Amino acid sequence: MTSKGAEVGTVRPGGRTARVRAAVLRATEDALVEQGFDGLDLGAVAQRAGVGKTTVYRRWGSATALVADLLVDMAEQSLPRADTGSLTEDLLANARLVRRTLADPRQGTLFRAVIAAASCDERTAEALRRFYQVRVREWAVCVEQAIQRGELPEDTDPDEVVRAVSAPLYYRLLASQQPLDEASADRAAHAAVAAAKAGVYARTR
Amino acid sequence: MTSKGAEVGTVRPGGRTARVRAAVLRATEDALVEQGFDGLDLGAVAQRAGVGKTTVYRRWGSATALVADLLVDMAEQSLPRADTGSLTEDLLANARLVRRTLADPRQGTLFRAVIAAASCDERTAEALRRFYQVRVREWAVCVEQAIQRGELPEDTDPDEVVRAVSAPLYYRLLASQQPLDEASADRAAHAAVAAAKAGVYARTR
Repeated sequence: MTSKGAEVGTVRPGGRTARVRAAVLRATEDALVEQGFDGLDLGAVAQRAGVGKTTVYRRWGSATALVADLLVDMAEQSLPRADTGSLTEDLLANARLVRRTLADPRQGTLFRAVIAAASCDERTAEALRRFYQVRVREWAVCVEQAIQRGELPEDTDPDEVVRAVSAPLYYRLLASQQPLDEASADRAAHAAVAAAKAGVYARTR
Repeated sequence: MTSKGAEVGTVRPGGRTARVRAAVLRATEDALVEQGFDGLDLGAVAQRAGVGKTTVYRRWGSATALVADLLVDMAEQSLPRADTGSLTEDLLANARLVRRTLADPRQGTLFRAVIAAASCDERTAEALRRFYQVRVREWAVCVEQAIQRGELPEDTDPDEVVRAVSAPLYYRLLASQQPLDEASADRAAHAAVAAAKAGVYARTR
């Protein structure tokens, strides 16, 4: 039935599996936002998701694995990069997207919770590292295109430029505890462009 | 006796009070490094510091107050700014100091713990905000002098330049989970200088 349904396109293959995963990850997100990583309990997540406990224990098995899978999903669901034809405009779009995400009460709390968890758990740190790799790679294409257009030195490291846009925004959220206003996003993008043009992000030779 | 000793300079006024505070803050730091903020217990801190429980409860009263006082002490104990006569050299010194601190296993863990605590406790967040204000102000004088020397546009916001040096290093520690190598420190300083010279950190008008 499922495979026949899949053939005619009415039911996606793996539809139930995907729906269970979506419900469990949504419940994981809710729990992280409300109670942080330390309050993440597999039984409570299963109940909130309306899914059997054994399913959650069998498929994920630990709070760390739930967070790791949530980060995979967050990377997949994130918005694609901009493609305006101008490096400054592309990086302004990236900075504004990052700012909007971190300034959003739910998303900001989620990132704080995951980052706090990564600071004391190596598997979560690894999952977070992969999340940023995926996101940085997506936007690094904007920088690669700018290099091809001759806007930046040829030996510019595209990943470093993208990270430079995010860094001041995360610094405000986590360290200096300053508000994430729109001006801070635009300044982050303009700073990355100025430093990249000055050759600061040349690959280490 | 104490006041007489203070007069002739053999015993500092408040010597015992200061020694108790030093021992308690050191014990607080140890506990944060070993167990994080959630494991911070006033009774255990008192025992580790060799100080009476009632003293710790009376003078600090909560784990949050201990961390807040530790941050005041950390700001006071931090190294003074550089004064090389060159903005780039001054900011390189700042970046290398921040990198060394965050890359140090004990200090890095301490900062992660305090930052994690700030993400779920407003009083700790406020104490952390003040810590960075003090440190940023100390080093902002380097930028003010560079403006006076004509190295930077007159309307440059000195605090923003100093924060720009720290941001990529904290981003590596907390978000991207990349190693804090020396090259990352030098790049952070050079990026801040390039962006400042390009007028990115002009005060919002």
